[in-house]
Amino acid sequence: MGLVVQKFGGTSVGSVERIKHVAERVARTRAEGHQVVVTVSAMGKTTDELTALAGKVCDRPPKREMDVLLTTGEQVSISLLSMALMEKGVKARPMTGWQAGIQTDPIHGKARIEHIDTGNIRESLERGEVVVVAGFQGVSPEGAITTLGRGGSDTTAVALAAALDADRCEIYTDVTGVFTTDPRMAPKARKLSEICYEEMLELANLGAGVLHPRSVECAMSHRVPLVVRSSFEDEEGTWVKEADRMEEELNVRGIAHDSEVARVKVMGLPNRTEMLTLLFNKLADAHINVDMIVTSEHDDERIDVAFSVHEDELEQAGQVIESHREELDYLKLLSETGLAKVSAVGAGMVTNPGVAAKMFTSLSDAGIRIKMVSTSEIKISCVIAKDQAAKAVQELHTVFGLDVEEALATVSS
Amino acid sequence: MGLVVQKFGGTSVGSVERIKHVAERVARTRAEGHQVVVTVSAMGKTTDELTALAGKVCDRPPKREMDVLLTTGEQVSISLLSMALMEKGVKARPMTGWQAGIQTDPIHGKARIEHIDTGNIRESLERGEVVVVAGFQGVSPEGAITTLGRGGSDTTAVALAAALDADRCEIYTDVTGVFTTDPRMAPKARKLSEICYEEMLELANLGAGVLHPRSVECAMSHRVPLVVRSSFEDEEGTWVKEADRMEEELNVRGIAHDSEVARVKVMGLPNRTEMLTLLFNKLADAHINVDMIVTSEHDDERIDVAFSVHEDELEQAGQVIESHREELDYLKLLSETGLAKVSAVGAGMVTNPGVAAKMFTSLSDAGIRIKMVSTSEIKISCVIAKDQAAKAVQELHTVFGLDVEEALATVSS
Repeated sequence: MGLVVQKFGGTSVGSVERIKHVAERVARTRAEGHQVVVTVSAMGKTTDELTALAGKVCDRPPKREMDVLLTTGEQVSISLLSMALMEKGVKARPMTGWQAGIQTDPIHGKARIEHIDTGNIRESLERGEVVVVAGFQGVSPEGAITTLGRGGSDTTAVALAAALDADRCEIYTDVTGVFTTDPRMAPKARKLSEICYEEMLELANLGAGVLHPRSVECAMSHRVPLVVRSSFEDEEGTWVKEADRMEEELNVRGIAHDSEVARVKVMGLPNRTEMLTLLFNKLADAHINVDMIVTSEHDDERIDVAFSVHEDELEQAGQVIESHREELDYLKLLSETGLAKVSAVGAGMVTNPGVAAKMFTSLSDAGIRIKMVSTSEIKISCVIAKDQAAKAVQELHTVFGLDVEEALATVSS
Repeated sequence: MGLVVQKFGGTSVGSVERIKHVAERVARTRAEGHQVVVTVSAMGKTTDELTALAGKVCDRPPKREMDVLLTTGEQVSISLLSMALMEKGVKARPMTGWQAGIQTDPIHGKARIEHIDTGNIRESLERGEVVVVAGFQGVSPEGAITTLGRGGSDTTAVALAAALDADRCEIYTDVTGVFTTDPRMAPKARKLSEICYEEMLELANLGAGVLHPRSVECAMSHRVPLVVRSSFEDEEGTWVKEADRMEEELNVRGIAHDSEVARVKVMGLPNRTEMLTLLFNKLADAHINVDMIVTSEHDDERIDVAFSVHEDELEQAGQVIESHREELDYLKLLSETGLAKVSAVGAGMVTNPGVAAKMFTSLSDAGIRIKMVSTSEIKISCVIAKDQAAKAVQELHTVFGLDVEEALATVSS
């Protein structure tokens, strides 16, 4: 008897048949005696379709209006899932973001949850209802509809679990758990039964699509036990939790990759600290997430600054910088796309300085040129050409001993 | 310089191209210096598609969840129209029902507007924005999303115009105005330049689809000047206003028809007033709209009661009556579909008792059997077989002198 938050992504609710299947799973959890809060994404390709529709109206749809448009997707899902539950005799109540009390800041398109007023949800749970909450959305202090941006539905689920002090948060997805790397890229990838928040956060930040870093961050800071599992198979998933209950420690726990990387180079920026501050403050003001940053000397008085951003934000980053050309007084602005980032992640790496060297050697032996490097206590990332990403992932997966064990014997014949 | 409320129906916003066209028209009104509040329906067939989707999840989708589902349709429209306006440099703000302060009772699927809290809209208008409000929807006292049911978007527009004390309410639709009868049924129908609220209300109640009776009622009680015009052509529309400014008075102003009529017969109800009260109270409790009622003697102690309802509500009406079989103590319950209602409407009829006789004679001469009759001060309605409706409409249109004048001359040759 506990309180369980379950999240089903767009693929899991991609058709009426799948919604009925989700209803069965929710009904089962309810029948076990748990209180259940479910959060769902928009059905399948809905968000893409709505985005395309907006694109026909104007080239750069305003973000506030996009939020009004896109949030209809989850609203459709909550109504249909509630109907499917009621059809099975399970009491249910659909709630949009504003009805569920999900209060966010007013940054349209990538709002952050500031607070969840759980009154409505608790009342509904006390009436014995399954609460079906629209993921990805909230309401700003001025009463405008907001969306949480990429990974928003995961974040909704984890934030709800934290606010309701849930016993666990189950993330249902189209894979069976968290893998040592992307199985589509490296067939030898294997599923982890457990991983700690910190490692999951690095993997997520580095592009392991299964969980969005924001949701992992939120789970970590509120110590919400997460489990990632398949919505289609009954197989056990991967638990994401405190480090103390982890499996035997390994140097490298997983290889992540992100193939939507772009690089901006600001050449010949005056070599004064305030110029770097100015540059990155202007980008932050425009809500552009800068990832890796590398600086190098241009000449005695100037430096070159290179940084990576998500492909989608490259154009805006360029515009922000150009609009401050006079203040920044740089010589030249360059950008590059077609890049990817591969990363090795593991809590054990901090005590093992040989990992970086092993990574560079392995990539270099495979003929892969490293364009940028960044490291943290538990990860090393390299930016490389996108078309070499799969090769790099496979190499690193093997080099760091993550491959599935070979079949023990071949039948003698 | 005034405040204008404009309403565009589903056909008018049926595609991105049409939404852009609507934006042009709104922009033109704004450019004339008016403050503008626009209310829109869902795009084209969206509501039907969503209804079909729900039908795949369960046979009888619960109404509260249907409201959550259907309201996404108008939410899509308001976001796209706002984008299209902003693309033209017109400041705009989309508002859902709850954001626009449209407070309704909690009867899902056919809620009534109780109050409009115009604070948000007024603030937005003062900022110089065109306010784009989702029609057809509101929020109940408990904070649930509601829909207004049939004709809801017209009602939203008129209620907004009343609450904001607008100078006029423009209803844009796929016809050029209010006709003496349905032009698809009677090619000789002609457009009226003006009509009074009372006549429009009867015409609307009797199935003239161009305006829903609820919206006319609301306009009449708040004396909101309405104009019905085409969203595709620039032609002058039909003004619906106070009677004193009307054209020359005619006995009959229009012929209405409604082809979705069903009849229920409760045979052998005990002949006591409380039984009739009980019967119609139970139907009212289930929010079934009963239209015409005819009673006749069954024998000395019992009566037969026949009444008409909308086809869609026939099944529910039957269930309500059967569930009170013991209390009502009737002998037999019958129902009939495939019916239509044709009506002659005109404020002048009250002083001209010959109209009814003329109507019955004309239908009877055309071989059309009259199954039920009801009259008011300004209309006479007859229920007949649906497959005779077009013939009846044409006959009555001619008999009451509404046909378009014949071409004055044929070219001599």
